[in-house]
Amino acid sequence: MNLLKLRQDIETHLIEDLGDGDITTNAIFSSADEGSMQLIAKENGVFSGVQIIQTAFRIVDPETLIKILVTDGESICKGQQLAIISGKISTLLSAERTVLNLLQRMCGIASLTKKAVDALNSPHSKITDTRKTTPGLRMLEKYAVRCGGGSNHRFGLYDAVMIKDNHIAFAGSIKKAVYLVKEYGSHMVRIEVETETKKQVLEAVEAGVDVIMLDNRTVEEINQLVPLVPNHILTEASGNIQLENLPEYAAAQVDYISLGCLTHSYQALDISAKVWTN
Amino acid sequence: MNLLKLRQDIETHLIEDLGDGDITTNAIFSSADEGSMQLIAKENGVFSGVQIIQTAFRIVDPETLIKILVTDGESICKGQQLAIISGKISTLLSAERTVLNLLQRMCGIASLTKKAVDALNSPHSKITDTRKTTPGLRMLEKYAVRCGGGSNHRFGLYDAVMIKDNHIAFAGSIKKAVYLVKEYGSHMVRIEVETETKKQVLEAVEAGVDVIMLDNRTVEEINQLVPLVPNHILTEASGNIQLENLPEYAAAQVDYISLGCLTHSYQALDISAKVWTN
Amino acid sequence: MNLLKLRQDIETHLIEDLGDGDITTNAIFSSADEGSMQLIAKENGVFSGVQIIQTAFRIVDPETLIKILVTDGESICKGQQLAIISGKISTLLSAERTVLNLLQRMCGIASLTKKAVDALNSPHSKITDTRKTTPGLRMLEKYAVRCGGGSNHRFGLYDAVMIKDNHIAFAGSIKKAVYLVKEYGSHMVRIEVETETKKQVLEAVEAGVDVIMLDNRTVEEINQLVPLVPNHILTEASGNIQLENLPEYAAAQVDYISLGCLTHSYQALDISAKVWTN
Amino acid sequence: MNLLKLRQDIETHLIEDLGDGDITTNAIFSSADEGSMQLIAKENGVFSGVQIIQTAFRIVDPETLIKILVTDGESICKGQQLAIISGKISTLLSAERTVLNLLQRMCGIASLTKKAVDALNSPHSKITDTRKTTPGLRMLEKYAVRCGGGSNHRFGLYDAVMIKDNHIAFAGSIKKAVYLVKEYGSHMVRIEVETETKKQVLEAVEAGVDVIMLDNRTVEEINQLVPLVPNHILTEASGNIQLENLPEYAAAQVDYISLGCLTHSYQALDISAKVWTN
Amino acid sequence: MNLLKLRQDIETHLIEDLGDGDITTNAIFSSADEGSMQLIAKENGVFSGVQIIQTAFRIVDPETLIKILVTDGESICKGQQLAIISGKISTLLSAERTVLNLLQRMCGIASLTKKAVDALNSPHSKITDTRKTTPGLRMLEKYAVRCGGGSNHRFGLYDAVMIKDNHIAFAGSIKKAVYLVKEYGSHMVRIEVETETKKQVLEAVEAGVDVIMLDNRTVEEINQLVPLVPNHILTEASGNIQLENLPEYAAAQVDYISLGCLTHSYQALDISAKVWTN
Amino acid sequence: MNLLKLRQDIETHLIEDLGDGDITTNAIFSSADEGSMQLIAKENGVFSGVQIIQTAFRIVDPETLIKILVTDGESICKGQQLAIISGKISTLLSAERTVLNLLQRMCGIASLTKKAVDALNSPHSKITDTRKTTPGLRMLEKYAVRCGGGSNHRFGLYDAVMIKDNHIAFAGSIKKAVYLVKEYGSHMVRIEVETETKKQVLEAVEAGVDVIMLDNRTVEEINQLVPLVPNHILTEASGNIQLENLPEYAAAQVDYISLGCLTHSYQALDISAKVWTN
Repeated sequence: MNLLKLRQDIETHLIEDLGDGDITTNAIFSSADEGSMQLIAKENGVFSGVQIIQTAFRIVDPETLIKILVTDGESICKGQQLAIISGKISTLLSAERTVLNLLQRMCGIASLTKKAVDALNSPHSKITDTRKTTPGLRMLEKYAVRCGGGSNHRFGLYDAVMIKDNHIAFAGSIKKAVYLVKEYGSHMVRIEVETETKKQVLEAVEAGVDVIMLDNRTVEEINQLVPLVPNHILTEASGNIQLENLPEYAAAQVDYISLGCLTHSYQALDISAKVWTN
Repeated sequence: MNLLKLRQDIETHLIEDLGDGDITTNAIFSSADEGSMQLIAKENGVFSGVQIIQTAFRIVDPETLIKILVTDGESICKGQQLAIISGKISTLLSAERTVLNLLQRMCGIASLTKKAVDALNSPHSKITDTRKTTPGLRMLEKYAVRCGGGSNHRFGLYDAVMIKDNHIAFAGSIKKAVYLVKEYGSHMVRIEVETETKKQVLEAVEAGVDVIMLDNRTVEEINQLVPLVPNHILTEASGNIQLENLPEYAAAQVDYISLGCLTHSYQALDISAKVWTN
Repeated sequence: MNLLKLRQDIETHLIEDLGDGDITTNAIFSSADEGSMQLIAKENGVFSGVQIIQTAFRIVDPETLIKILVTDGESICKGQQLAIISGKISTLLSAERTVLNLLQRMCGIASLTKKAVDALNSPHSKITDTRKTTPGLRMLEKYAVRCGGGSNHRFGLYDAVMIKDNHIAFAGSIKKAVYLVKEYGSHMVRIEVETETKKQVLEAVEAGVDVIMLDNRTVEEINQLVPLVPNHILTEASGNIQLENLPEYAAAQVDYISLGCLTHSYQALDISAKVWTN
Repeated sequence: MNLLKLRQDIETHLIEDLGDGDITTNAIFSSADEGSMQLIAKENGVFSGVQIIQTAFRIVDPETLIKILVTDGESICKGQQLAIISGKISTLLSAERTVLNLLQRMCGIASLTKKAVDALNSPHSKITDTRKTTPGLRMLEKYAVRCGGGSNHRFGLYDAVMIKDNHIAFAGSIKKAVYLVKEYGSHMVRIEVETETKKQVLEAVEAGVDVIMLDNRTVEEINQLVPLVPNHILTEASGNIQLENLPEYAAAQVDYISLGCLTHSYQALDISAKVWTN
Repeated sequence: MNLLKLRQDIETHLIEDLGDGDITTNAIFSSADEGSMQLIAKENGVFSGVQIIQTAFRIVDPETLIKILVTDGESICKGQQLAIISGKISTLLSAERTVLNLLQRMCGIASLTKKAVDALNSPHSKITDTRKTTPGLRMLEKYAVRCGGGSNHRFGLYDAVMIKDNHIAFAGSIKKAVYLVKEYGSHMVRIEVETETKKQVLEAVEAGVDVIMLDNRTVEEINQLVPLVPNHILTEASGNIQLENLPEYAAAQVDYISLGCLTHSYQALDISAKVWTN
Repeated sequence: MNLLKLRQDIETHLIEDLGDGDITTNAIFSSADEGSMQLIAKENGVFSGVQIIQTAFRIVDPETLIKILVTDGESICKGQQLAIISGKISTLLSAERTVLNLLQRMCGIASLTKKAVDALNSPHSKITDTRKTTPGLRMLEKYAVRCGGGSNHRFGLYDAVMIKDNHIAFAGSIKKAVYLVKEYGSHMVRIEVETETKKQVLEAVEAGVDVIMLDNRTVEEINQLVPLVPNHILTEASGNIQLENLPEYAAAQVDYISLGCLTHSYQALDISAKVWTN
């Protein structure tokens, strides 16, 4: 994670909620009133977001004291105390909702990823995410996937090559598309190609790609296609894979299984904030 | 919606995905290659996001032609064509994922809100949202709630007053808290207060608030408390209300039922993009 | 006030004045040279701007020591010492003009508001501001109005509804306009409507608005119209009201009197800065 | 004026007023409703702000038609039509207040400057402004001063040198301060020095400055000091000069008379906007 | 290249030069004065920067007509006309220096890269760049390297892994460092490791990295080390390689030769702008 | 230098390199791992950039300890230790490349300027820079010129007037151009005019400019033209002057010699960073 960018992002998020100021809190509390806030898990799950807590309250007031009682990636239980924050009441109340909004989403993603990893229960395959993230939150959501035991796919259109059907069709063939990409791009960038048939897989192998995606294939098809790929090329199953059918992939020899739902259809994990004045 | 802000936000979102450029597309297509993209619903639901499509592609290339085939708030069916976009292939592919990421979330929220409105099926009560929105996307998410037939609660800490337990405890009483807020704030700002007991409801009525929240109350309790509140003061039920138990509230006389899940635990509605070259 | 936004704004203001650096000061002082600055009122008035002083110098150098000798809203006299700031001479001189430019305007607004409140001298009516603020300074100018004993009208087009002649004409009637706004907007947003005639006032009452503006009415007309409005609806007199004719409104029963001049035609209150080196 | 910067600034100002959208207008008008707006002077004065009108409405909607009926610097009369703008009603209403807030201030400054120029009525001396401008609006306010017939002093701490009492005291003498500044700074930057006595004026002349400020001097003192200064060095009278006593300076031979009030204590010129739907 | 980001960057660059406006041009030309500008190469070299010309003038005025007479990567000769731009004189003069400053640098890099490629004259090895780019211009400088026939190394710390001496020392061994990186990072990210000895090269091969850097090795050492590396792992020579000694590497079998000087010590290619009024 | 702007710029530069985080370092080091970094000159030259080191590491982590062992403008030798920085290893490695990229360029410029000053070796003339700086880095590059013993020309189009051939041609004559500029601009802004002939020089003198540029003149021509210019007007030689032919100008009486190469064709000075863990 880039903490400089995190700081800028959270400042923007705080201002989205605060606008010209927290009317209610400013009317009732003075800047001398101090207190504490406890963050408590209301559900079981996996934690992600230590840096959210550390950063957000200190943007509002650098003097705020923060004690974090969990680590990222740790399993948490309903009722567990996650952090204690002490400082000005106005700081605690002004940042509360923004912190919870970020934290609950990150824990939600980490918890869902953990469920996927457990459902798959594979000695070989890893769960990975996609670019189907919430605009503006990609860095945080991909971090949360890692906290849940998943691995990250590319971060954007800029850090890895993914040759899809349109690219292949326009270039004329997988081979030609890979050739164009190698001519154009950096040698520090991995190349993945979407395939659906045995012919395409073999063409991709020959073209010298780094990762072969088996798109919208059944487990049976995957089991037939993976052996065509030499060891130094990675394989990825993608498309129509849900938590429910993940166990079917437990014995598959595919290296990665990508799940869009990890970041586009997670549920926020319930976390509550209890505040008291000193 | 503020379209100036929307334009700035989507530009930021596009750059998050594009970084220093879409390597794959830039390697394979030239800026002279043109094509079209069709957006198709893959599930039934409620549409929200005309302005996303209109804005995003034109930020990348103002010459892009856009034909929208739905309106915000319209029910859409699996297989329905939503829009056709024509222009440079590189524009279509560069903006595709960002557009889908926003659109699927907004349609997801609109669809879930519609389900809540239908589940409630009340002649009297309206479904409303909360501040439990995704940081950075509040304007869009609250817009999507309206597309689904819901209504918006306050947008932030700055545009309405919400007196919660901490505020009441510190001020000493609901009456004192309301007094402080009226002294401090604008007369153009509404005041809501959280209540849990009959005593608190009566105190709030007397203090002259605009909205009384009945927090974490059962339907029975709500039915006992609402009649204590005169007509010109609105009532809102909040806390522990899920889609499943909404029908129990059908006959309640409460004005608003707020649901955090509308914006924190929605599922993206599946929409696909089909691209072809001219 | 949102102190995060204040910090960002003042940083922008400081850079407007500093550009690539304070040539004169950088040529003559080294970063080791220290000194103090005293801020002194050169006129009687009302102070507003503690946070300006606290924030601006510390943006330039967080080590600067700041002692504030007044509070916001306090009456100040010619010759009164307002604050003492100690630190690097280059910090003091670089931020001096920006601090004074903000402070003098805020004190000017607070002082003018105080004059208006005193001129009105009403047991019933409050002085309120408008959206006729200096672009970029609305948060600060509205804060200064409160320091002078005034109250704030809406902050922008986003936090309250104001139905004006064009809206009414296009909607067809006040009732239809109010209906459209209630359909569209949040229940957490207040609705005000501009009226000029008895008929309009009665229509507004019936439509269930929160605030009725009596636009460009004489004191006599106001005295005739206000009794038509039930207690739970607020009234506001607006238009052609100057400091000179405010006393005529002393006995009026209108709740609010709005004055554009508070923020569009104030005079900066003279404050000087005296600097000495250690 | 830098029109790129103007565009960025006005976009920021529009968003300050619009927030998440103009609730009233969005509720009542659709994006298909068109109309026109007329800007009319309600007082006599000097116009300044063609670019404000040209830029602001087109930021909201580039299709807006704008017809400007005045030029910057032109004298305008009460009742004079200044511009006609046609386009979407929502564009007209959303930008109206921001445009008026800028325009009225710029016309206020231009009109006050014109009054000062007329009051001075000097064949020799020019009216000039100061750095006592509204933070965020310096470029526009200094432009308005020129529209009123005034001339601009330095824009900030970065584009010219002004050696004040603190600089002189610390450097040890005017000569030493000038030496340090010439050593440090660019030869493309003018050097002005504050003086109060004959001795200081002579020292400044000898030090080879470009402009000598006669600070807080009476007209008599000015008339004695100016002849000490050779022709190629400019002179500037500053401090305690008000519109009322400007005529006393009519015969003075000083080159520039600087007035802080032009930008810190102007009154907004009243301009109204009349909107009608097509 | 990401054209959205380019637009934002060039706008920032234009404002750096324009500040509050081009005094000279604004004083002499009106916005009605039109003219043309011709860009002419004053030296032989390789062109890079079509998008700079296309973008910069149109940011200032979208109506500007631009005719580009070269393509990126084309060899250009002294005296060759590169582009003709027609529009407002003020647009041409305001953007001239910023355009030339960017263009001359990009052409300088492209030309130097071309020289390096020619000096190497290898059938096997490619010239690649480093992260030693000018802060703020990395996207453009890396683009210019490609125009000169070079290839790009990683863009930043975020899009590929580079395990250096400090990482190896702290992890304990190359193997452990690679293990940690594979555990942590995405499978879509390439891993390069710095090596200096045969032992390290073999360890890196065994650890399964994608690229092996042979750091500060002589041509002889490189010729001995490269054969230890299997074909599917790339090799890169780095350190102390200058244009002068590149021919020694012509017969080496290393895949990439990285040169920091391409982006940190290039000379601007001389390009002049000739302007005439219509 | 404006340190506020420097801070903002370096934060942008750090994020350009860091993107979503330093994968390699984050994989191998924890935030508890501490260490130190030594910056060492690898070549002789002139140092410039104390504030780069002071600022950059502390943006990443304010707790970082920094000991600077040189001053700006000091001559440094190969092998000389320049600074020691201690803190988190991740801070040191994350900021290393950005710091070096800025430092090496600034030292490169300072060193080249020093070479120019020494090559000129004039008792009378000063070396000055131009606007041919790297977009985004003008403030730093102009600062580095001063560290090398050079002086600064204008910073942009906004802080001084430069009347060039196009301006003269359009205005009709130098005199008319100067007249227009004096009418338009501030008296705090210097006016320079480009001249090529004796006639133009005399016209410029008569017009009362501050600086006369002798453009593309030979040393002989300069020696003939300078005596035509009175002492209070500065002269500047510009065009086709390289380090090689600077000694020819040693005896010329011109005040300034401007060199574009100082900022457009410098070589980065080699500086290395050695890191060790505690």
